[in-house]
Amino acid sequence: MPTYTPPLRDMHFVLHELFDVTAQLKQLPPHGEIDADTINAVLEEGGKFAAEVITPLNLSGDSEGCTLDKATHEVTTPKGFKAAYQQYVEGGWPALSCDTAYGGQGLPHVVNQCFYEMLNGANQAWTMYPGLSHGAYEALHAHGTDEQKSLYLPHLTSGEWTGTMCLTEPHCGTDLGMLRSKAEPQADGSYKITGQKIFISAGEHDMVSNIVHLVLARLPGAPEGSKGISLFLVPKFLVNADGSLGARNTVFCSGLEHKMGIHGNSTCQITLEDAVGTLVGEPNKGLQAMFVMMNTARLGVGNQSLGLTEVAYQNAVAYAKERLQMRALSGPKAPNLPADPIIVHPDVRRMLLTARAYAEGGRALSVYTSLQLDISLAHPDEAVRNAAADEVAILTPIVKAFITDNGWNATSQCMQVFGGHGYIHETGMEQFVRDARINMIYEGTNAIQALDLLGRKVLADGGHRMRTFGQKITAFVEEYGTREDMQEMIEPLSDLGARFTKMTQGIGMKAMGNADEVGAAATDYLRVAGHLVFAYLFARMAVVALDKKDSGDPFYQAKLATAGFYYAKLLPEVVSLMRTGRSGLKPLMAMDESMF
Amino acid sequence: MPTYTPPLRDMHFVLHELFDVTAQLKQLPPHGEIDADTINAVLEEGGKFAAEVITPLNLSGDSEGCTLDKATHEVTTPKGFKAAYQQYVEGGWPALSCDTAYGGQGLPHVVNQCFYEMLNGANQAWTMYPGLSHGAYEALHAHGTDEQKSLYLPHLTSGEWTGTMCLTEPHCGTDLGMLRSKAEPQADGSYKITGQKIFISAGEHDMVSNIVHLVLARLPGAPEGSKGISLFLVPKFLVNADGSLGARNTVFCSGLEHKMGIHGNSTCQITLEDAVGTLVGEPNKGLQAMFVMMNTARLGVGNQSLGLTEVAYQNAVAYAKERLQMRALSGPKAPNLPADPIIVHPDVRRMLLTARAYAEGGRALSVYTSLQLDISLAHPDEAVRNAAADEVAILTPIVKAFITDNGWNATSQCMQVFGGHGYIHETGMEQFVRDARINMIYEGTNAIQALDLLGRKVLADGGHRMRTFGQKITAFVEEYGTREDMQEMIEPLSDLGARFTKMTQGIGMKAMGNADEVGAAATDYLRVAGHLVFAYLFARMAVVALDKKDSGDPFYQAKLATAGFYYAKLLPEVVSLMRTGRSGLKPLMAMDESMF
Repeated sequence: MPTYTPPLRDMHFVLHELFDVTAQLKQLPPHGEIDADTINAVLEEGGKFAAEVITPLNLSGDSEGCTLDKATHEVTTPKGFKAAYQQYVEGGWPALSCDTAYGGQGLPHVVNQCFYEMLNGANQAWTMYPGLSHGAYEALHAHGTDEQKSLYLPHLTSGEWTGTMCLTEPHCGTDLGMLRSKAEPQADGSYKITGQKIFISAGEHDMVSNIVHLVLARLPGAPEGSKGISLFLVPKFLVNADGSLGARNTVFCSGLEHKMGIHGNSTCQITLEDAVGTLVGEPNKGLQAMFVMMNTARLGVGNQSLGLTEVAYQNAVAYAKERLQMRALSGPKAPNLPADPIIVHPDVRRMLLTARAYAEGGRALSVYTSLQLDISLAHPDEAVRNAAADEVAILTPIVKAFITDNGWNATSQCMQVFGGHGYIHETGMEQFVRDARINMIYEGTNAIQALDLLGRKVLADGGHRMRTFGQKITAFVEEYGTREDMQEMIEPLSDLGARFTKMTQGIGMKAMGNADEVGAAATDYLRVAGHLVFAYLFARMAVVALDKKDSGDPFYQAKLATAGFYYAKLLPEVVSLMRTGRSGLKPLMAMDESMF
Repeated sequence: MPTYTPPLRDMHFVLHELFDVTAQLKQLPPHGEIDADTINAVLEEGGKFAAEVITPLNLSGDSEGCTLDKATHEVTTPKGFKAAYQQYVEGGWPALSCDTAYGGQGLPHVVNQCFYEMLNGANQAWTMYPGLSHGAYEALHAHGTDEQKSLYLPHLTSGEWTGTMCLTEPHCGTDLGMLRSKAEPQADGSYKITGQKIFISAGEHDMVSNIVHLVLARLPGAPEGSKGISLFLVPKFLVNADGSLGARNTVFCSGLEHKMGIHGNSTCQITLEDAVGTLVGEPNKGLQAMFVMMNTARLGVGNQSLGLTEVAYQNAVAYAKERLQMRALSGPKAPNLPADPIIVHPDVRRMLLTARAYAEGGRALSVYTSLQLDISLAHPDEAVRNAAADEVAILTPIVKAFITDNGWNATSQCMQVFGGHGYIHETGMEQFVRDARINMIYEGTNAIQALDLLGRKVLADGGHRMRTFGQKITAFVEEYGTREDMQEMIEPLSDLGARFTKMTQGIGMKAMGNADEVGAAATDYLRVAGHLVFAYLFARMAVVALDKKDSGDPFYQAKLATAGFYYAKLLPEVVSLMRTGRSGLKPLMAMDESMF
């Protein structure tokens, strides 16, 4: 069975040595008091919960899955899930980054990011229950009425109740403008909502006394398309004015999806039949309201794959050190053993280091983005807030798509380290691969992320936000351009920055002639952007590590080795991506649809 | 539920228009009489069996899996598997490419290749039962005594019995030199074999009256390592001299592996307890004997992923034409529908064409290699036989690793076309991905294939065999170098050939300094070699298609579009691979083992 060790040392490096987050947070009034010791203590405790409580439930949860009682519509989660959740609630973990006005602890996103990385690494399927709930909390916090907030937020903050996001319908996922669920206004100001939803994560389960569904539906006479969608709060049990639970609402789990992975999470078909709901936010502006939680949910999905990449790496390393098979081509490395441990083989190291570099790069990127999110929400200077929000806008699709594509690659390579044993359920490696696969799909497929980045975030403002971010890289290159021991990174980074600018301009020119050129280049473009950001962050990490490499702590040597590996073996992917990106639309459209 | 349409048109193109196989086979005495009509008729009937009989069992077989009765050690295959197998036997299909001396039909490998591609596309898990059996047939045919052959081959040929390959043990897979199973000689010339095997595909099942295990084990006093391994025939039921079945032998299925995919195949733990066996081939030369079937099995594994790539492509195309979601960025393409079919989106086409190009390239490569195999076995001129065998040696690891890596990529992309629906079991797309994953592992992991290619096949003979194959490409480039409408392919092909030669030389030089440089470069090298071969074959296909593009048959336009896509969007991967290959061993070894 796989094990999980919270990567606290690397988190400390990223939080404190690389980004000095406490200095940054000091400038944000809500977080001015938080110090490094507090952050580290929270992460240490959180890591214990992840490693000791939910790690042991991951493999068994996958085998057992969830079960639906069709008579009662109740869903039973795998053995141990409910007890672990109770422990989570008792520990106060759901409140970690919630508003203190509703009982939360008010910690910044950047701490929550690291906490959730560990939960995801330990057990993605379990973590989706509190994870989805936190998304619902955020949407309600941003758009709910005072009454909705006071009735629901304390229970979501405490974790007594959980929440869901009910968007997808059988005929529409990406294109929510097509959705058909209906909301009929009632005399008392409430709505009766009827419709069929699918793929609803944590949609029904046995862990809590109430489930708060946030449901997209159409009001009578609403405009067609995405401008006619409203958001409703539909609780499983109606909530009385005093906060006590009332009647069972007519929102039911009508089926569980049979999925490739995340078996421990109950992915539900949800049927609403005149279910009672209340409007959240303004009529017909439901999609915008939902996007509040969609954006942090996208960061959360990247974080899921970051967790999986780390845990797959850890277990592959343990196996590679222990499994004896063949001798090194250059001669025996462990002559006293019947064969060498497979970590002596360069290709095994290539697989391990791929996962390691993607984990370390992903962690640096995710922490950086979360910190910008905190700044965008709480800095006293509006210009600083806006600049941070611009970075979050650019980085969110990269976090979501680049980290999840890398996670798929990394978990598969870690599985490969196990040879045939990786294909067997009991080692847990194939589960990481199956779980990682959904992250490329939900919360907007990775192609949608790529269109979001290139179309909406880059080309729509003439490249302004991307250029601004690029200036950080340029400044870094200028600062360290003369440093001898950084040449192996500064030159390719500088070169990539220049080529990336040209690539952006080239696509922009083509897109003026045919908007489909954006769709043709977007996926390649996002991966190049992801590598540019990783190359920048690995170079920054290398600067920190170089200054401490003689400190006696092997951590810094290892960081330099990982950064070197990244530059030598992973970053060169950009050369191909620039070629394929440049080749444009024509090769994709040359074949008539009828010939497929 | 997925459907499968035998790709007969493309097979006819590859067999007859591209390679003119009947003209080639005419030179081989055993196959001199076979004509195109016969080949096409066999494939049409075979395709019907694949599409109509075993396709409908694929998804249900995955859901149901195999079950072991621990009391009787008997395994029950999924519903319908046994009846389908009976129909297969009644149709005479097991005999297709078997020796006429034992009741076979004696058809060439190149026909069997296409037949098996269809079986694999329809149902890989089911196809492994006859597939493994054919491997055992080949080893026995090559190395068995006359008595073994006359007792066993007719039953394997008819399909009444099936065979297995029992190699792997818990502590060794890649490194068979470590295996521990023991064979004790008996007074009557037989052996008693004791040991524990794992991962034995089709190791026990309910389809046939007897199962013939080919088992690797050690004789008393045998040399250590791979030079002390012998091969034994161990039947489930002992076989009397008259061919009738005798006592149940003490070879048992002691457990079924729980796997990521190929659930319909019974992957067994096999326990031998003084099981009666007879020696196959010479003592201590079991590994060489096993390699006879290992090499064709490797071609067979590539063929599995070829089949999966094709079927995943077909189903993704159907979905992309039917699923309505969003409008094309360049404006509505189906204004009368509520949204455009997703095939209008360039990124969806990229995913579809990736699978299509990998299927068509894989088919051309596999058919070419099978034809060389036939020539290597049956050409009257020894020099021709040897030249063909050299090509098979070079191409086998490419077929195995390049096609299976591509198949993993392609099936995953086809699944992505389905969005969230691809993650759901019922669409069948995620099964293709899970099934495809094993092909990168078994019959020698893809890293082992890469070492085989670069170390044993290329560097070991100073690059002679690879250069000889390269001369074919050079001759092609010279022949078509002046043809205007081939310039878009000839130039990159010629360029890649030259760079590949340099890459080979560069690695060869480095390897003289440190043998681990081979392991560091092998995986990148194999992928570059695979692309070189695909680029050559796509260019050859383009020549044929260009000459017929005005024939009115849209097939040729489509072939040109696919070849153009391949050159524009897939082949550029080589640019990155050459860089990473060139960066060598150092970035892989910079980190001390203790720091992982």
